[in-house]
Amino acid sequence: MLDVIESPINVKNLSTKELRQLADEIRLELSSILRKAQKPLKSSLAVVELTVAIHHVFHAPADKILWDVGEQTYAHKMLTGRRFLMNTLRQKDGLSGFTSRSESEYDPFGAGHGCSSISAGLGMAVARDMKGKRERVLTVISNGTTMAGQVYEAMSNAGYLDSDMIVILNDSRHSLHPNIEEGPKTSINALSSTLSKLQSSKSFRKFREVAKGVTKKIGRGMHEWAAKVDEFARGMVGPPGSTLFEELGLYYIGPVDGHKIEDLVCVLQEVASLNSMGPVLIHVVTEENQGIEHSQRSDTGEDVGEGSSSYDSIASNYQPRTYSDCFVEALIRKADSDKDVVMVHGGAEVEPSFQLFREKFPDRFFDIGMAEQHAVTFSAGLSCGGLKPFCVIPSAFLQRAFDQVVHDVDRQRIPVRFVITSAGLVGSNGPVQCGAFDITFMSCLPNMIVMAPSDEDELVNMVETAAMVDDRPICFRYPRGAIVRTDKSLSDGIPIEIGRGRILAEGKDVALLGYGSMVQNCIKAQSLLSKLGIEVTVADARFCKPLDIGLLRELCENHGFLVTVEEGSIGGFGSHVAQFIALDGRLDGRIKWRPIVLPDAYIEHASPNEQLSLAGLTGHHIAATVLSLLGRTREALLLMC
Amino acid sequence: MLDVIESPINVKNLSTKELRQLADEIRLELSSILRKAQKPLKSSLAVVELTVAIHHVFHAPADKILWDVGEQTYAHKMLTGRRFLMNTLRQKDGLSGFTSRSESEYDPFGAGHGCSSISAGLGMAVARDMKGKRERVLTVISNGTTMAGQVYEAMSNAGYLDSDMIVILNDSRHSLHPNIEEGPKTSINALSSTLSKLQSSKSFRKFREVAKGVTKKIGRGMHEWAAKVDEFARGMVGPPGSTLFEELGLYYIGPVDGHKIEDLVCVLQEVASLNSMGPVLIHVVTEENQGIEHSQRSDTGEDVGEGSSSYDSIASNYQPRTYSDCFVEALIRKADSDKDVVMVHGGAEVEPSFQLFREKFPDRFFDIGMAEQHAVTFSAGLSCGGLKPFCVIPSAFLQRAFDQVVHDVDRQRIPVRFVITSAGLVGSNGPVQCGAFDITFMSCLPNMIVMAPSDEDELVNMVETAAMVDDRPICFRYPRGAIVRTDKSLSDGIPIEIGRGRILAEGKDVALLGYGSMVQNCIKAQSLLSKLGIEVTVADARFCKPLDIGLLRELCENHGFLVTVEEGSIGGFGSHVAQFIALDGRLDGRIKWRPIVLPDAYIEHASPNEQLSLAGLTGHHIAATVLSLLGRTREALLLMC
Repeated sequence: MLDVIESPINVKNLSTKELRQLADEIRLELSSILRKAQKPLKSSLAVVELTVAIHHVFHAPADKILWDVGEQTYAHKMLTGRRFLMNTLRQKDGLSGFTSRSESEYDPFGAGHGCSSISAGLGMAVARDMKGKRERVLTVISNGTTMAGQVYEAMSNAGYLDSDMIVILNDSRHSLHPNIEEGPKTSINALSSTLSKLQSSKSFRKFREVAKGVTKKIGRGMHEWAAKVDEFARGMVGPPGSTLFEELGLYYIGPVDGHKIEDLVCVLQEVASLNSMGPVLIHVVTEENQGIEHSQRSDTGEDVGEGSSSYDSIASNYQPRTYSDCFVEALIRKADSDKDVVMVHGGAEVEPSFQLFREKFPDRFFDIGMAEQHAVTFSAGLSCGGLKPFCVIPSAFLQRAFDQVVHDVDRQRIPVRFVITSAGLVGSNGPVQCGAFDITFMSCLPNMIVMAPSDEDELVNMVETAAMVDDRPICFRYPRGAIVRTDKSLSDGIPIEIGRGRILAEGKDVALLGYGSMVQNCIKAQSLLSKLGIEVTVADARFCKPLDIGLLRELCENHGFLVTVEEGSIGGFGSHVAQFIALDGRLDGRIKWRPIVLPDAYIEHASPNEQLSLAGLTGHHIAATVLSLLGRTREALLLMC
Repeated sequence: MLDVIESPINVKNLSTKELRQLADEIRLELSSILRKAQKPLKSSLAVVELTVAIHHVFHAPADKILWDVGEQTYAHKMLTGRRFLMNTLRQKDGLSGFTSRSESEYDPFGAGHGCSSISAGLGMAVARDMKGKRERVLTVISNGTTMAGQVYEAMSNAGYLDSDMIVILNDSRHSLHPNIEEGPKTSINALSSTLSKLQSSKSFRKFREVAKGVTKKIGRGMHEWAAKVDEFARGMVGPPGSTLFEELGLYYIGPVDGHKIEDLVCVLQEVASLNSMGPVLIHVVTEENQGIEHSQRSDTGEDVGEGSSSYDSIASNYQPRTYSDCFVEALIRKADSDKDVVMVHGGAEVEPSFQLFREKFPDRFFDIGMAEQHAVTFSAGLSCGGLKPFCVIPSAFLQRAFDQVVHDVDRQRIPVRFVITSAGLVGSNGPVQCGAFDITFMSCLPNMIVMAPSDEDELVNMVETAAMVDDRPICFRYPRGAIVRTDKSLSDGIPIEIGRGRILAEGKDVALLGYGSMVQNCIKAQSLLSKLGIEVTVADARFCKPLDIGLLRELCENHGFLVTVEEGSIGGFGSHVAQFIALDGRLDGRIKWRPIVLPDAYIEHASPNEQLSLAGLTGHHIAATVLSLLGRTREALLLMC
């Protein structure tokens, strides 16, 4: 079957039996591709039947099909002309792991951060109405993203504006939080939890009643639909979530078994034929292990991220290898001695190593999920109540809570400790999860202390420092991926004096001032340059805010060139250094400042090393910059060959 | 009565009759204070009885009382030792217009941006439980803020964590959107709308049923409560919103008449005596005209902002006077000729002048309210659908949608036009609404064009420019307050070449490069300096991104000093200029760069001029900086005397 599908048009005339076969073939091929790529299978495979049914009923690209979560779009990619590129998924110059407007006309909006599809779809629906067009707008959201406030904002506005659009809630028990049932109570939110309960209770209220409403509105062609009603309507006590959607103004239909293609097609066809119904929500229940052989299930663990260990292996045979591993080890030590230390986690996935903290301190671990705004203000409240919250959020997701960081923490000078994970480039997740901006948007805040560790020992020290500072907010960022020395155990942390950097190597020609992870690359550059007879000072800034003024003055006085290096956008560490030396009256030619920052572009998915190279942030790039500053342009070119 | 109230402790032993009298006295005094200060009365006065009842029942500051909206806290301020400072409200060194932790121990959390109180209160409740304490946590939210996603995130998490806390929903029909009933459909959201409908329908469902549940749980002391049940329970069809709260896991009680102190006290007392109930939501309905004489009502219009005209006066006798007035006039002209131009408004209040657009193009004006995340992504969807959205959001509220600007607009290079209002200092609204960070967080984005007009003619030109650019996102910021020349009508807009600044005056000694509103202050500085024989170039950068490279090179080559001036934080325009001249190899002493930015502090409420002076951004300050750069320190000091 799959071989004859060149575009969704070929899915249109298939029989139900053929659609089922197509879904099976997709599942088989996709399993194989993802297993080879060591990527998570479950959430990708759960929506195979749904994807096939959608493309059977709707007419993409005229009809707009929007997705919320990257992993759920793989079957969609296979059906929309990208099947033979699937082996390039998330690789340099290959397919994106998310939907992308520039990749395909079948991707009307870029998925990635979650939560966006209803807002964007509503905009498209309103634009369609204003322009007198008639295409359908359909968005697929997962129950993981229903935690996010934006989804409520969007649903509520959709209910109000009343444009025709179809929202499919893909309600998948295991999607984002595998431990919901057994886990402690300090996680997730009420809706997720009730949606989960629904599946086990198998109570399918309301379907009959709602179906009747539909019948009344459309009045014809309902025999097939009507036949389904009795099949679904199993009881009168039903999905608690449904009322919520209706309160928000969406017409609720469901739940529908997300693996029965015939049911999906039937429901989608009826809904597609409706007019002037306003927004309709179809609640589809999927099972993430659907179609995965039992023997294969052990391969289908959560996405473990680059360089990170899986939960099981960490628990049984612990060896810190990633920055997150080290952070958690340090935080657990701290929490052992200080009962006020708690961890608040915001963002889509709890990293496997964080489960160690949760396991040890179940009542002191708060998994807020994709509700980052709440996670930040909740942390502020915990702090006001006398606790010491470490609020752990990936850089790219902290963007979603910037206002809360400003007003609910920084402006009120409330001591919240922000731990910014996945800072800088993130490899195959590309620009969607790239943490490019946090240095810039955190260090412009007046009360915030902004730090970054240059290695795992410094990270442990910064955990101590953050625990100690109790009169103002503080943050530190660390990258995804492996630490510097994996062969030794972590030393005990020692608090760092606030605003005190350090010199790691001394040389007279050029000063390299690294921030965070880039200190390591400065050391690499120094080693390259020393072979060319150039003596380089390497300093570890540690703090973007407050800056180490003494260190900066020393570097300015003893060198002709000061190169700042950071894995972040313009406006961050280098800008703070430049402003200080300008105000200090030192931009008079004695010292020349040269910033190295992330380029002013989104860096597409590739391996971490490829991305660093594209960004011009490797040791070689830094060394080449120094050479060209010294007028040794030819050597600079040679170095990059 | 009021004279004997020194702290909430004095409210404890009052009889119902005395509480009523106290509320009346507060309303009278507060009306007089606010009228004198020309501040909005209605939302402040609507919660007088509620405030009195809360302080009668609860024990602040041990019990934590959190508010969401500044204006609702004035009666609270009067009862908590700040009565005799009320005449200093929102003035320099006077009381803040919001709650403030540094102002009073009775303010456990800073209100301001809205939406934060449940998140913060939940954090305090959880901290209390962990620390084995027993104080009550009570938060008051307004129905205006129920639009915001964070409120859902917080309620949903509160339902899950199940800590005891009390959420009072102050449901006030007129609070934020006076035109909801008559207005077109393109505004607000479904919940707000249903809550509003509730009041007119007077249907008080559920109260009996819920009250029964309470009775069962507490089992005693219910006679007074029970007596009230029949009074409230008027029917069985009731508040649509209530089910929504229950779905989220909050125990719903209400609606309660927010002006009957005896009812409020009764309900609050019962709820205060509950234990292990989890989160309880009390739905209180208030009337904003309560207690205001009919003859006074004309005085009690909406907060019109500094320098802004009221809606009525604009409509009848139009004369553009604020930047917003000019923007709207220009956008209306544009929308007349281009049917694709639409306006999306995010943030708490629709400025009076924006109503002109709404009136003229009711179907092309989308008031999204305090749901800024959705407003931005919705705009992206409209743009994908072929429209030309102008997404209008105050700078401080755009912070709430930063992630959506990054991922749903900039990363996908979708042409959305952001109009950033209230940029820079905002006078008596203080740091809560100060737009300090937008230049920094918008100009680090790779695809964004970032502009700022230096006067009203430039603003009109930038509306044209933004309408023209259709291949990438673009933004411009303008300040609150009056335009430069109010005596002439607006000229027709002419698109500006992207990345092209202009020189306004030429001199040889120093170059002043202003951004946005600060160009005017550079001109003032130039005028002061010319009297001292110093010849100054004044340039209007217009663009922070892309920078005008030609202009920058010219300024560098012809001057010894380049002073950049902006009404924004570090990391913005000046940082972009510095990075360019560093990379261009010009930081070799021939040119000295000096940045003037907002200070690294939150500037408290004061008049706009006082704030500018505190920030060091007046013409005098700029001139003094130039004098000291030139070594004429004594003259610089004299200038500031």
